[in-house]
Amino acid sequence: MISDAASARPEVVRVVGTGLLGTSVALGLSSRVDGVRIVLSDPSPTSLALARDLGAGEIDRGEVEPDLVVVACPPDVAAQVVLSELARHPRATVTDVASVKASVLDAVLAAGGDAARYVGGHPMAGRERSGAVAARGDLFLGRPWVICPTPKNDPRRVDAVRGLASALGATVVTMSAAEHDDAVALISHTPQVMASLVAGRLQHAPDAAVAIAGQGLRDVTRIAGSDPTLWAQILAANAGPVAAVLRAVRDDLDGVLNALDALAVEQDAAPARGARADIARAVAAGRSGRERLPGKHGTRPTAFASVTVAIPDEPGALARLFADTGDAGVNIEELTLEHAPGRAVGLVDLSVLPAAREDLERALAEHGWQIVG
Amino acid sequence: MISDAASARPEVVRVVGTGLLGTSVALGLSSRVDGVRIVLSDPSPTSLALARDLGAGEIDRGEVEPDLVVVACPPDVAAQVVLSELARHPRATVTDVASVKASVLDAVLAAGGDAARYVGGHPMAGRERSGAVAARGDLFLGRPWVICPTPKNDPRRVDAVRGLASALGATVVTMSAAEHDDAVALISHTPQVMASLVAGRLQHAPDAAVAIAGQGLRDVTRIAGSDPTLWAQILAANAGPVAAVLRAVRDDLDGVLNALDALAVEQDAAPARGARADIARAVAAGRSGRERLPGKHGTRPTAFASVTVAIPDEPGALARLFADTGDAGVNIEELTLEHAPGRAVGLVDLSVLPAAREDLERALAEHGWQIVG
Repeated sequence: MISDAASARPEVVRVVGTGLLGTSVALGLSSRVDGVRIVLSDPSPTSLALARDLGAGEIDRGEVEPDLVVVACPPDVAAQVVLSELARHPRATVTDVASVKASVLDAVLAAGGDAARYVGGHPMAGRERSGAVAARGDLFLGRPWVICPTPKNDPRRVDAVRGLASALGATVVTMSAAEHDDAVALISHTPQVMASLVAGRLQHAPDAAVAIAGQGLRDVTRIAGSDPTLWAQILAANAGPVAAVLRAVRDDLDGVLNALDALAVEQDAAPARGARADIARAVAAGRSGRERLPGKHGTRPTAFASVTVAIPDEPGALARLFADTGDAGVNIEELTLEHAPGRAVGLVDLSVLPAAREDLERALAEHGWQIVG
Repeated sequence: MISDAASARPEVVRVVGTGLLGTSVALGLSSRVDGVRIVLSDPSPTSLALARDLGAGEIDRGEVEPDLVVVACPPDVAAQVVLSELARHPRATVTDVASVKASVLDAVLAAGGDAARYVGGHPMAGRERSGAVAARGDLFLGRPWVICPTPKNDPRRVDAVRGLASALGATVVTMSAAEHDDAVALISHTPQVMASLVAGRLQHAPDAAVAIAGQGLRDVTRIAGSDPTLWAQILAANAGPVAAVLRAVRDDLDGVLNALDALAVEQDAAPARGARADIARAVAAGRSGRERLPGKHGTRPTAFASVTVAIPDEPGALARLFADTGDAGVNIEELTLEHAPGRAVGLVDLSVLPAAREDLERALAEHGWQIVG
């Protein structure tokens, strides 16, 4: 039986928690895996019925034994639900989608849960909207899905969870729970905290100040719109690794503050020696770090050339612009739509491979587009 | 003569500094103001000849007296150049485009320059590329251009500088030099420092960690690619106001760190009372601050609905997508192109007015697009 139960092709999958992620997993499996039977569970009868009505699967009546259980609960209850699922379904491989992994694994080990059958996971996917109503079967398409095997795992259980992520179109990334938590502290949790703190400073800013804000501030603070309750749970569950990164940021910040304080009182007779160099070093360190981010499709980053085009603010304007870029045979690598304060014109910034910039500019100019940068 | 010299329609404009901004000002005036004569000056004969060859104007031989002088030098020399221009051209209105304003004004007043004729300005425009070769006559189109009049100013001198910004298509915003410097410390200089510090933490991160980085980190650190030397000059020139904002951010960060430290050692027997609430409050404050940012065209922000579409990574794909959005009569408010690590598929996130979301999703589905979120 164990070989069936642990096979990468599950026959019965139980999804516990029918929010955005759980319902998306169920919808994705229903549409992408032939013959799989999905049974759903959620403490909220309303959420459960909604997921069923959306076609995610049937409500679990306890009539079938799952060979795979996917726990998709809020971070603060994930560990206890994983433990109860391990005890309740002794044949099943159990995984979860919580965004912090060591705390769940530690709880399983501490409580003597069957560590051979628990394989933690974290799909790096989400939406600004939440709940079953926002779920999509293809939510995980092309996104990284981290899985965290342990030495205690039955390898077939690991294959089963890897198979789940692959079946949903995700890109599987394997690392330990500790490596995962350190990684998300650096690349997700710390940026969230810093974006929130920078945005928090805007609360009591003069209207005239926010009125001249540009794309840079918008980019830095975009994720500051996130849900405070959810993020308090996430940051609390990863407190140690996040505090370690934030403490290093705080020390770097103190270095910049010391340099600025010296410059603020600088006089010709008493220059602030080294202060400008300290600031330049901090900015240069950021540039080196930024260059480590993978470019498109995980390749090394390319220095793209940028072309900015002014477009009228009306339906179809972007359509015409991109039809013209398509005619030019130029592939747009990155793009952003900037806003022109007080004017009914949009500025579209197109990033292309440097070799393609002149072709694009010529093609757009021929089509009458106004290139403004 | 003074009335001519101070008129909003200059006859002779002298541009000092033929880098990106100075050359863009000259190109814009040449193409947008009939009959204006542009004379150029730069300490670098190469840069000067390049600007002339690009059609920005003629090299200043000292044969004509300017009625408007635009100083477009690096921030660390702007004040002394403004002073020398005021002394050298006693009829001219003198403005500058330095990104910090109080230090220039203070230098003019301290040196006894003709404060009636100096009106500081700051066009909120730039590019990742620099130098005359990157200049565009329309660089300022639709961007805010802050001008900082003083009680000492001849009102016609203020009109002349306002006329310059308007002639270049910019949106004129008037505030005092101190208000400007406090504003840019908050909305430009602080975000730059924080983006650099967050990105700096990536320098020695494991490859596996940066490999799973998502759009959030990319947004927060995008401006971290900026020029360290230029930013050391800008931050040094605005050290006091920037330090004041960064110190408040540091204090908020210490509050989050204290809460995380308490949570890291929390036990069932000894709960970290209030720590989760402290973190949730910091994230909620960021959300409130973020909501103060003006939306499109300076209006109040709208909560946009988001539609994410998977597109093949090939020329013309965006063209087809936006042709189809255009057919649907839906106006795209914001958009970003996300990357799918290790896969040749792009994820385009379209923000539309909530009322338009269903129409857009229906239209795209009908055209065979894969909506993934």
